[in-house]
Amino acid sequence: MKLSEIAEKFRLEFRGDVDVDIQGIAGLQDAGPNQISFLFSGRYRSLVESTQAAAIVLRKEDASLTTRPVLISGNPRLAWAQIAAMFDPTPVATPYVDVSAVVSDQAQLGKSVVIGPQAVIEPGAVIGDGAEIGAGGFVGEGVAIGAGTRLMPHVVVYHGCSIGEGCLVHSNVVIGADGFGFEFDSDSGDYIKIPQVYGVQIGKHVEIGAGTTVDRGALNDTTIGDGCKLDNQVQIGHGTRIDHHTVISGCTAIAGSTKIGSYCLIGGAVGIVDNIEITDQVEITAMTLVSQSILEKGRYSSGTGLMRGTDWKRSVVGFRKLDDMLKRLRRLESDR
Amino acid sequence: MKLSEIAEKFRLEFRGDVDVDIQGIAGLQDAGPNQISFLFSGRYRSLVESTQAAAIVLRKEDASLTTRPVLISGNPRLAWAQIAAMFDPTPVATPYVDVSAVVSDQAQLGKSVVIGPQAVIEPGAVIGDGAEIGAGGFVGEGVAIGAGTRLMPHVVVYHGCSIGEGCLVHSNVVIGADGFGFEFDSDSGDYIKIPQVYGVQIGKHVEIGAGTTVDRGALNDTTIGDGCKLDNQVQIGHGTRIDHHTVISGCTAIAGSTKIGSYCLIGGAVGIVDNIEITDQVEITAMTLVSQSILEKGRYSSGTGLMRGTDWKRSVVGFRKLDDMLKRLRRLESDR
Amino acid sequence: MKLSEIAEKFRLEFRGDVDVDIQGIAGLQDAGPNQISFLFSGRYRSLVESTQAAAIVLRKEDASLTTRPVLISGNPRLAWAQIAAMFDPTPVATPYVDVSAVVSDQAQLGKSVVIGPQAVIEPGAVIGDGAEIGAGGFVGEGVAIGAGTRLMPHVVVYHGCSIGEGCLVHSNVVIGADGFGFEFDSDSGDYIKIPQVYGVQIGKHVEIGAGTTVDRGALNDTTIGDGCKLDNQVQIGHGTRIDHHTVISGCTAIAGSTKIGSYCLIGGAVGIVDNIEITDQVEITAMTLVSQSILEKGRYSSGTGLMRGTDWKRSVVGFRKLDDMLKRLRRLESDR
Repeated sequence: MKLSEIAEKFRLEFRGDVDVDIQGIAGLQDAGPNQISFLFSGRYRSLVESTQAAAIVLRKEDASLTTRPVLISGNPRLAWAQIAAMFDPTPVATPYVDVSAVVSDQAQLGKSVVIGPQAVIEPGAVIGDGAEIGAGGFVGEGVAIGAGTRLMPHVVVYHGCSIGEGCLVHSNVVIGADGFGFEFDSDSGDYIKIPQVYGVQIGKHVEIGAGTTVDRGALNDTTIGDGCKLDNQVQIGHGTRIDHHTVISGCTAIAGSTKIGSYCLIGGAVGIVDNIEITDQVEITAMTLVSQSILEKGRYSSGTGLMRGTDWKRSVVGFRKLDDMLKRLRRLESDR
Repeated sequence: MKLSEIAEKFRLEFRGDVDVDIQGIAGLQDAGPNQISFLFSGRYRSLVESTQAAAIVLRKEDASLTTRPVLISGNPRLAWAQIAAMFDPTPVATPYVDVSAVVSDQAQLGKSVVIGPQAVIEPGAVIGDGAEIGAGGFVGEGVAIGAGTRLMPHVVVYHGCSIGEGCLVHSNVVIGADGFGFEFDSDSGDYIKIPQVYGVQIGKHVEIGAGTTVDRGALNDTTIGDGCKLDNQVQIGHGTRIDHHTVISGCTAIAGSTKIGSYCLIGGAVGIVDNIEITDQVEITAMTLVSQSILEKGRYSSGTGLMRGTDWKRSVVGFRKLDDMLKRLRRLESDR
Repeated sequence: MKLSEIAEKFRLEFRGDVDVDIQGIAGLQDAGPNQISFLFSGRYRSLVESTQAAAIVLRKEDASLTTRPVLISGNPRLAWAQIAAMFDPTPVATPYVDVSAVVSDQAQLGKSVVIGPQAVIEPGAVIGDGAEIGAGGFVGEGVAIGAGTRLMPHVVVYHGCSIGEGCLVHSNVVIGADGFGFEFDSDSGDYIKIPQVYGVQIGKHVEIGAGTTVDRGALNDTTIGDGCKLDNQVQIGHGTRIDHHTVISGCTAIAGSTKIGSYCLIGGAVGIVDNIEITDQVEITAMTLVSQSILEKGRYSSGTGLMRGTDWKRSVVGFRKLDDMLKRLRRLESDR
């Protein structure tokens, strides 16, 4: 593919030799002479000089940094998303139902679906047009999978859950396992299970990363709104409701019955307790524990900063004494 | 089902129109005119007035809050567990062995078992009466699965492990993978694997959430006692022994060779280091790091509280200076 | 097996009755009269007196602690690794391709491979000599699996990824799912997916624990060096590069494009942010958040210590006031 074709396809202004052959993309440091690269932020300007890339996508104001061919974009990251898609090697299966799949004759398959090897489709499941159930996938009773939605290999969807159109669900995701609900019975000394009788409803254009679990609800469906993006190994508790376009990074755990607004950015390995409310456009930094509702948008954190082990141990000792320190401060102040 | 039938079945006192038709359960806010709802705590009393529920299960002292039909229970949460079970849509398979399953003729299947599609049962495995191995499950060599135990789709149990009676194991749980044990060999500069020659023994009536991993032991079996409840994505290290009726919330990681008592309540995303001992009835709050043994029952925590990002950064700076602050305090005190 | 045979095989000096029959290994507390045990550190010396073990592997200076038969080793933990291997019950399959596996005729199988029941091997995959793909495994298009590498049941490897020789990959590992990359499009209010066009390259002699996920890269391959050991439920973000012999404990999350050196020891439930660099031989303690590059070797931490819940709450209040406390300290000092 020639650079000129890319420029034309995405209507990007260009400079330099547009006949150069482009065979892929890469970072500035790694790019070879047939790869296109990108300058996203000032932080990496120094790499522009040394890159071997065939061409660089950058902002107008950065064009003077190089004599190589450039494509000008107001948002090089968006251009990246578009150009990368031209070189995406993800296999796209032609519609078929593998002979090794076990598909109930009471399931309903849309047009042009892919049902991969060893997959299992239970009675009452409805697979939308052009949807794909990857190898070894399990689609439970009465599950609805939206048109064009792609379940990568080994996704499990329990009975009665639904996933909207145009979603991408990565391997080993489990949708609709029982929420974690027990009540202590003092007579027997046992925990009695609270049946999780509701399901999970996932909106359109949601992406869910590998190994993420979304539990079914006990008193209402667990819901994930349109356009949400969940990274790997996220845990969503039962009955939690997440509004549209909220982004959740890897290994974050959200307990049950919590409500989260739209356009939130939740960092990695965050913990969010149950039965609270987080409003729209809240940003939570990595490894924060959210132990109370957040009713005002903005950025929130908890935890402490990284330290050398020996210094840290001394600060941990000080943390234990904080209440005592406060009292001593007050005494000193009153003694003045 | 009529409200009177529910009242009778669970011997609950009632008030109001007991002929009302009940088709399901829901929270107070979401309940429709054919659903029964529950008042668990004073916190939600205000919702009783506005609910559309057909009837409400509540404590005697709360009955005056509404003119709707009510069922009186000394423990509405236990009543919830019982009533919800009547409306549980979880499919119950009739006993069968799917033709697509690969079952060793050296495995032993009890009466009335379910072996789902694409499941694999290895030689020497013993599946108890009425047990279910869900679709795509893997039961390794010599594994014992107790009577009535249910493995949801895609559970993996490695060789030689055992699960007791009446357990429920959710999808993508892995029981018996190798514990994490290596010894550095300074001659070669390599880490040498320590073979994990023991297994995992899980008691009766244990529930294990989706994606949880329980490693096999190196010097003793990893054990989980009767009545324990583990949430999703929990990690249990090799050789760890957990006594009966301990409850562990999602994403908690417990390192190897640690002993945990009975009736503990361990919050979500907690970390517990290796080779320590936690006594009975210990409660650990969410995201705490347990770095030492806990020999007295009670509640334990670590971490800091949620803050606005800008305020938090200043506190992080202060945390770094805590040792210095302590010294300055002492100097001021001695100067008095 | 006689104790003398073990002594001879590993050339260990011995003392006492070397004809004693050894049928297995166990910890000092649990060992029975036909098991061999180990004394690793002074911490457990008191157990030597009461153990029922047939024999004990220990350092020369500890031999006087017991009258039982002993094997003398300069490194009892290395001896443990070697002796345990003699009693390892992990099943070793004889080479075969199960009839229920779905193996593309465009895949290339080496000599003496094992392809377990219900496995799926896609076109262009290359399985090295003596490699094993466990039950239900998925090996995507063009994947390379090195000689002697063992994928336990239900491992998923996406298209185009490679795993070196002599690796051990535990159940439910996902290699090569899409990295988490989106760009906000202010015109549509949607997040646009950034295609993850690169793959994952894993070196030789790597062990990966159950449920771990390693994402494919967007601008370069995600790489894991020779001899690395990853525990369960670890998350490795896209484009991250980990040098050789680094050890990562369970539930640790590493974000994208970060570089980690060799011989690092990363504790459990650690969080490491994206786009930073960690040099060689860095040790990170459990549950630390690494929010910045670490350019000097040594030990690093964050967080606070374990406390009684009531005391902890007071310290959390103090943490919130740290900036204020610093100001008050300064005022007192200037007032002197």
